[in-house]
Amino acid sequence: MSIALFERVSLATVQRILVAGLPGERIEVAADAADPTDVDIAVVGAPTRGALARFSNLRLIVSLWAGVDHLVADPTRPKDAIITRLVDENLTTTMVEAALAHVLAAHRQHDVYRRAQGDQHWSPQPQSYAPARTVAVLGVGTLGTAVAQAIARVGFRVVAWNRSPREVEGIVVRSGTEGLPAVLREADILVNLLALTPETHGILRKETLSLLPEGAVVINLARGAHLVEADLFELLDRGHLRHAVLDVHATEPLPREHPAWRHPRIDVFPHVAAQTDPASAAQRAVETILAFRAGLPLPNAL
Amino acid sequence: MSIALFERVSLATVQRILVAGLPGERIEVAADAADPTDVDIAVVGAPTRGALARFSNLRLIVSLWAGVDHLVADPTRPKDAIITRLVDENLTTTMVEAALAHVLAAHRQHDVYRRAQGDQHWSPQPQSYAPARTVAVLGVGTLGTAVAQAIARVGFRVVAWNRSPREVEGIVVRSGTEGLPAVLREADILVNLLALTPETHGILRKETLSLLPEGAVVINLARGAHLVEADLFELLDRGHLRHAVLDVHATEPLPREHPAWRHPRIDVFPHVAAQTDPASAAQRAVETILAFRAGLPLPNAL
Ligand SMILES: NC(=O)c1ccc[n+]([C@@H]2O[C@H](COP(=O)([O-])OP(=O)(O)OC[C@H]3O[C@@H](n4cnc5c(N)ncnc54)[C@H](OP(=O)(O)O)[C@@H]3O)[C@@H](O)[C@H]2O)c1
Ligand SMILES: NC(=O)c1ccc[n+]([C@@H]2O[C@H](COP(=O)([O-])OP(=O)(O)OC[C@H]3O[C@@H](n4cnc5c(N)ncnc54)[C@H](OP(=O)(O)O)[C@@H]3O)[C@@H](O)[C@H]2O)c1
Repeated sequence: MSIALFERVSLATVQRILVAGLPGERIEVAADAADPTDVDIAVVGAPTRGALARFSNLRLIVSLWAGVDHLVADPTRPKDAIITRLVDENLTTTMVEAALAHVLAAHRQHDVYRRAQGDQHWSPQPQSYAPARTVAVLGVGTLGTAVAQAIARVGFRVVAWNRSPREVEGIVVRSGTEGLPAVLREADILVNLLALTPETHGILRKETLSLLPEGAVVINLARGAHLVEADLFELLDRGHLRHAVLDVHATEPLPREHPAWRHPRIDVFPHVAAQTDPASAAQRAVETILAFRAGLPLPNAL
Repeated sequence: MSIALFERVSLATVQRILVAGLPGERIEVAADAADPTDVDIAVVGAPTRGALARFSNLRLIVSLWAGVDHLVADPTRPKDAIITRLVDENLTTTMVEAALAHVLAAHRQHDVYRRAQGDQHWSPQPQSYAPARTVAVLGVGTLGTAVAQAIARVGFRVVAWNRSPREVEGIVVRSGTEGLPAVLREADILVNLLALTPETHGILRKETLSLLPEGAVVINLARGAHLVEADLFELLDRGHLRHAVLDVHATEPLPREHPAWRHPRIDVFPHVAAQTDPASAAQRAVETILAFRAGLPLPNAL
């Protein structure tokens, strides 16, 4: 059996590291696969929907991305294949740096001062300290846990919400459907790091976002489909929310005509909070494949 | 003898705390002082030049601000009076939060993405990690030391420069005139937290700023007069520097017609990196005055 590569962006890097780390394996680029039915492992980034279908004997899909919602949601993928997601220290570090940057910018009112600058308006705002701000982190999985702890370390009060109960040192984690409103009601700054699943699709909508205190800032670093954009726009426009940072979007790349680009209260980022580092992600893929071939448990399997 | 108050902004708060903390002292607002020659202590924020002159028997000037360059530079002040500057934990905490916010925004290229947003341009940039970025802190006094350590704690490589040799745990500090170029040459991000003195006036000018690597970001949190604005503009406009954050300005408030307001590569902030907290600054003033009356050493005297 052989391994097929679907990652497009840094194929050369990924291939080099797989070849070096997996001697004896036949490794080919998916598009060039001689016999798709002979492939049992796929190493993927964001394959187009349907691209996995013809690999009917797949047993393992190794994702080079942390989010695997697009793989799970593809009905054409070989159903028996295990999916593993990327858990990579470099990715976590980057997400922590991105989240800290956005939270501190919200805390220090960079958006307010930028608007004042646009009006050539010198207007010092009342100052607040991090311990007086509550940051809510939704989802304390791999990334959310590291982010929540880093934000707390800088001095913010952090509350978190997770589907299932979870212990995170130094942080109050509420869980279950009934735990969410309490967390939202306290959040001056909201950071979304949930997985995208049918249950979390549209979780940030009018009903939930209205629970945030007036003047709150929403930072979406997870998936565009978590957020009902029209509801966010409405709450920004009526002044209930002060600002939003959208790193992820329902449609990516964000279409040129999308109103978020020109909204004065939205910062658009092009899905860059934590970009996969091809070299280290490929190294993680090597480890996963070696474990799989040895029949060992796969810690990052869904 | 009595104490005169010059602080305008939060006079009521400061006065209340001085009265409560210094029973037996006569405390009056400077403008209302019955006999200026009877005043031996002045508690000041930013008094207008010349305002101290008529208090000819002053022995102590207690600043509610950390920067005392405007006091030192006022030739009309009673020359024998000791000046003490504000060293306050709240002020340091705020400056650390401000500096972290600006450094992380520079690291995560918020300025680049904001310009891309203006063009509705989806353009992910190569990503870097904090340990791969060098942040230079100029001045490791009270604020610079705390800032340098906080930036290092987040993961950045930090180098510092100080006039006199200084040990700061975990950070390489160069000193003396000959130490500055080496620090500048390494700095992807420069944070200025020097005191303003005749020697540091205009220290950030073409000659020094050109030593920064191409694409560097300059963050001035100390005093506007540290920077030669025309030289900064030139280096930004020719693309040698990527961006600048100016919290402080040669003239404050920054005049409406000043070109910095409209410069696409400058973030203007209205001197808010660390605003004096009137209550805690007044408490520090009480401690200084009690020590002075008791003939004890004044740790924050110039
Ligand atoms: N913007 C970027 O550049 C970028 C980069 C990488 C990742 N991401 C995104 O970041 C997010 C977090 O990634 P991760 O690696 O930390 O994921 P993870 O470890 O799988 O954590 C996901 C979190 O979502 C929760 N969750 C899963 N299913 C749920 C459901 N049905 N209802 C409610 N909560 C549910 C999990 O709760 P349990 O503990 O109860 O399962 C967990 O807290 C993902 O959405 C990913 O796509 C974005
Ligand atoms: N933007 C804001 O909101 C804000 C708020 C508060 C303060 N500030 C400014 O922040 C700066 C730092 O304040 P701080 O409380 O940390 O001051 P500090 O403790 O007095 O530290 C000042 C630093 O400047 C250095 N320095 C003094 N004279 C010098 C000279 N002639 N040549 C070179 N270096 C010299 C000192 O070096 P040595 O150790 O050798 O003396 C020290 O490293 C000040 O400019 C202050 O005005 C700004």
